[in-house]
Amino acid sequence: MANFEGHALPGSLFLIVGLWWSVKYPLKHVHHKGKRSLGAHAYQRLETIEAAIRTVLPLIGILAEQFVPSGPHLHLYHGDHWVKLMNWQHSTMYLFFGVSGLIDLLSCLYTHIPRGLDKLVMAIATFVEGFLFYYHVQNRPPLDQHIHSMLLTALFAGSTTLFVEVFLQDNVVLELFRTSLLLLQGTWFWQIGFVLYPPSGGPGWDLQSHENVMFITMCFCWHYLAAMGIMATCYMLVYCFLSRSKLQHENIIGIQKLKLDHSYQEALLNGSDEE
Amino acid sequence: MANFEGHALPGSLFLIVGLWWSVKYPLKHVHHKGKRSLGAHAYQRLETIEAAIRTVLPLIGILAEQFVPSGPHLHLYHGDHWVKLMNWQHSTMYLFFGVSGLIDLLSCLYTHIPRGLDKLVMAIATFVEGFLFYYHVQNRPPLDQHIHSMLLTALFAGSTTLFVEVFLQDNVVLELFRTSLLLLQGTWFWQIGFVLYPPSGGPGWDLQSHENVMFITMCFCWHYLAAMGIMATCYMLVYCFLSRSKLQHENIIGIQKLKLDHSYQEALLNGSDEE
Amino acid sequence: MANFEGHALPGSLFLIVGLWWSVKYPLKHVHHKGKRSLGAHAYQRLETIEAAIRTVLPLIGILAEQFVPSGPHLHLYHGDHWVKLMNWQHSTMYLFFGVSGLIDLLSCLYTHIPRGLDKLVMAIATFVEGFLFYYHVQNRPPLDQHIHSMLLTALFAGSTTLFVEVFLQDNVVLELFRTSLLLLQGTWFWQIGFVLYPPSGGPGWDLQSHENVMFITMCFCWHYLAAMGIMATCYMLVYCFLSRSKLQHENIIGIQKLKLDHSYQEALLNGSDEE
Amino acid sequence: MANFEGHALPGSLFLIVGLWWSVKYPLKHVHHKGKRSLGAHAYQRLETIEAAIRTVLPLIGILAEQFVPSGPHLHLYHGDHWVKLMNWQHSTMYLFFGVSGLIDLLSCLYTHIPRGLDKLVMAIATFVEGFLFYYHVQNRPPLDQHIHSMLLTALFAGSTTLFVEVFLQDNVVLELFRTSLLLLQGTWFWQIGFVLYPPSGGPGWDLQSHENVMFITMCFCWHYLAAMGIMATCYMLVYCFLSRSKLQHENIIGIQKLKLDHSYQEALLNGSDEE
Repeated sequence: MANFEGHALPGSLFLIVGLWWSVKYPLKHVHHKGKRSLGAHAYQRLETIEAAIRTVLPLIGILAEQFVPSGPHLHLYHGDHWVKLMNWQHSTMYLFFGVSGLIDLLSCLYTHIPRGLDKLVMAIATFVEGFLFYYHVQNRPPLDQHIHSMLLTALFAGSTTLFVEVFLQDNVVLELFRTSLLLLQGTWFWQIGFVLYPPSGGPGWDLQSHENVMFITMCFCWHYLAAMGIMATCYMLVYCFLSRSKLQHENIIGIQKLKLDHSYQEALLNGSDEE
Repeated sequence: MANFEGHALPGSLFLIVGLWWSVKYPLKHVHHKGKRSLGAHAYQRLETIEAAIRTVLPLIGILAEQFVPSGPHLHLYHGDHWVKLMNWQHSTMYLFFGVSGLIDLLSCLYTHIPRGLDKLVMAIATFVEGFLFYYHVQNRPPLDQHIHSMLLTALFAGSTTLFVEVFLQDNVVLELFRTSLLLLQGTWFWQIGFVLYPPSGGPGWDLQSHENVMFITMCFCWHYLAAMGIMATCYMLVYCFLSRSKLQHENIIGIQKLKLDHSYQEALLNGSDEE
Repeated sequence: MANFEGHALPGSLFLIVGLWWSVKYPLKHVHHKGKRSLGAHAYQRLETIEAAIRTVLPLIGILAEQFVPSGPHLHLYHGDHWVKLMNWQHSTMYLFFGVSGLIDLLSCLYTHIPRGLDKLVMAIATFVEGFLFYYHVQNRPPLDQHIHSMLLTALFAGSTTLFVEVFLQDNVVLELFRTSLLLLQGTWFWQIGFVLYPPSGGPGWDLQSHENVMFITMCFCWHYLAAMGIMATCYMLVYCFLSRSKLQHENIIGIQKLKLDHSYQEALLNGSDEE
Repeated sequence: MANFEGHALPGSLFLIVGLWWSVKYPLKHVHHKGKRSLGAHAYQRLETIEAAIRTVLPLIGILAEQFVPSGPHLHLYHGDHWVKLMNWQHSTMYLFFGVSGLIDLLSCLYTHIPRGLDKLVMAIATFVEGFLFYYHVQNRPPLDQHIHSMLLTALFAGSTTLFVEVFLQDNVVLELFRTSLLLLQGTWFWQIGFVLYPPSGGPGWDLQSHENVMFITMCFCWHYLAAMGIMATCYMLVYCFLSRSKLQHENIIGIQKLKLDHSYQEALLNGSDEE
């Protein structure tokens, strides 16, 4: 949808998953380091729920793209021309992410699906989004083209990372990198919406200005800095929380041990009394 | 051959190999997981037959390109100009795939050929196809260029995958990815034929229209979705078939064991009678 | 800053770090080979100091870019246009290198930061510099564009190397390669300053001349040769120095041993005398 | 040198090294497989000689480029313009290959040079050749540009392969691939010479013709096929030669054993006679 909502929706969806990942991966990593493995069953269930949500979310996107008043309502060809190809392309992008979620879900439920296939399909979905965007923005004003093409950097970097993850599974650095790229994508969609369709209704940006193109390039880097900041904050919070809970856990165990020792000594004393 | 048949022929050849692979690799993987190794000898023979077929199929392509009525009949230079360079380029593409098949065949027959060389030559053959296509379509209308350039994505992705397979052999995810790209290539050749040379004889597509270019980009993604669907179906069928045959196998063994036990008991009884 | 100093400053900063690295990595490698591990504590402290310096140096760059008389003095938008976007872009580049230094510092101080994250952030900082430069030099005369685009080769090669180092840590070949690219970048910034803003005040180079473009391309290769030469010299000096110090060390130990043996024998003799 | 000899000289140099490699690597591989290790000392000496030759050969190239009558005779800048930049660029290319040879030589002689550095420097030399060629051919007629740009494919593929070899040493598939690319480069330089400066003195090719561009693209693939053929032949010859020599070796050992057994039996008989 070529309006503010059409960019805010995918931006929000990407941000939701990105924020969840920036909690999940530090949690997984810190736990693993502390040798206190999260209950395997609980973790497995979490992964399944995430996969299910990542299968359903794109459906919302597809429905929104198809059935908004200005949408194609599932008509592809009418009279002598294609109907609303933009919306169809967006639907296709969502569809691939839905398939990626579905493969994740199946990987969680069935063990005979080859390990790494979920990452490959996610890499393909990310690549397809970049691929469609690449041809999507031809014949548009410079700033419009440029602000979309920035996205390609994040998408192809993400796709490459995911392809590497097919072979290097559970590598925390790659997982954090991928998460930061996803957050970047989320905030950038919002930025695109604000630049191309200012919701305040004020005058739009000058789409021909070279100055604006230069600013947007730099702004993209700042967004990435923000994404790294969000992730670092999440990482620190998770670390502090786990350290404290571990400490409390040890305290409780310590106190219980103390109590046990105490009652044991009492029992001994009583025992020696009884003797 | 710049007609429908010239695109249907390679499309069919790629589809045949692609469909065979989408049965072969799941079979190999599921078998391997179930720890019931396919008879090594039988599998080796299958590989040899496949390699032989993949050596012969391109020959059919070369002969078709050279000896159709409008073909060059093995003449390269005549008078002051090159003869039918298009057909010669197609022949070169087929030739490289033939060489790739030949190396596969030799790898099956002789053990002293370095492991991984077959994948490297296949990667080269795929790259050469992309390389020739890249320079092939210059000076053509936009849609013609675009529909061919889509193919390049599949070809260079396939070539890269094969290059990685030189080092990571028998990786099922890479094998399935490669298979899906081959299926995509097969169906896309048919699509090119239908778009550029409609066999129904109706009016062709408008080769200058930007709308058509946009649709074709999206259509390429749908083809890939279809290729993934074909492969998933094959995978599931193979899995179900193997599970059932395994079950029957165990049942038969169980029944035979039961019978054996029964006759053993009878023998015992008889033996005790005879005593 | 679009003047000689604005290129000499980053050039010098990169050269300082580059020269330090071309001493550090050979030292680390030769030590490791000789099985005489540098005191782990001393080495750790050195790394921490380096990280702190690499966090502070970019701050100098940012301050210089912002508060030179012609700088933006932290104003980004004024009236109806962006203020001194060039300086802001340079500040952004410095900022990313500062963040990279900070992550290095944190990695030195805290052990629970994932291994390899420092290399990833450095790869990102290098990529961001290249990314900004790429869009930085549009609409400029050919030689200006060309001399900056040479830099991109060094930057993207460096970024790729760092990305590989996330997985292959402590690989001396990659470390030396990265160091040579950093030296190249340092000397090349000086070269850009000399070409675009001759400090002698003489007439500048003809920015439209194709001959100059060709010379600059070749000159870039010579700079790299010089960078390799500097590194080879450092490597040899470190090697000779360590070999000699090792020899002296062994001599001292040998002499001490001799003395010990001597006094022991004397003690024995005395002992036997006393008997 | 922009004439036939200027292309025949590098072509021949590359072919000499390429043909030697297509004997050396199969020899190394087949020997290794047969578990009959080539005398380590003899092999080491061979490598040293090769490295020395690869250091000297580029010097011939540099001298030829500088001191042919039309050469720059070591003058770089004269009057107000650069002197013979083409020859200088070619000299730079040769120089990098000379440095690569030198590093190989040093790696053979000194053991404390990091393993893999020789491959990295060779990768850099190959990349520099491609890098210079890329900017070398601008502002030339289409066929001239195209025939040179074909070379870039071989160069960047070779450079990438060498970069991978830094990590995967002694991988025979990569070594054979690199050899085939070197052979391709050698024959292609000859092809460039024949196309641009026909030695027969006949009329040159039409440098504007699209037909010629298309033929040259295909011709490049045929050259690669030829390079693969040369290598396959060398591989087979080496294999047959080694198998036969092994057989003869075993026969000789067998006969000697027989003789020994015979004389032993005789000695036994004589011994028993003498008893």
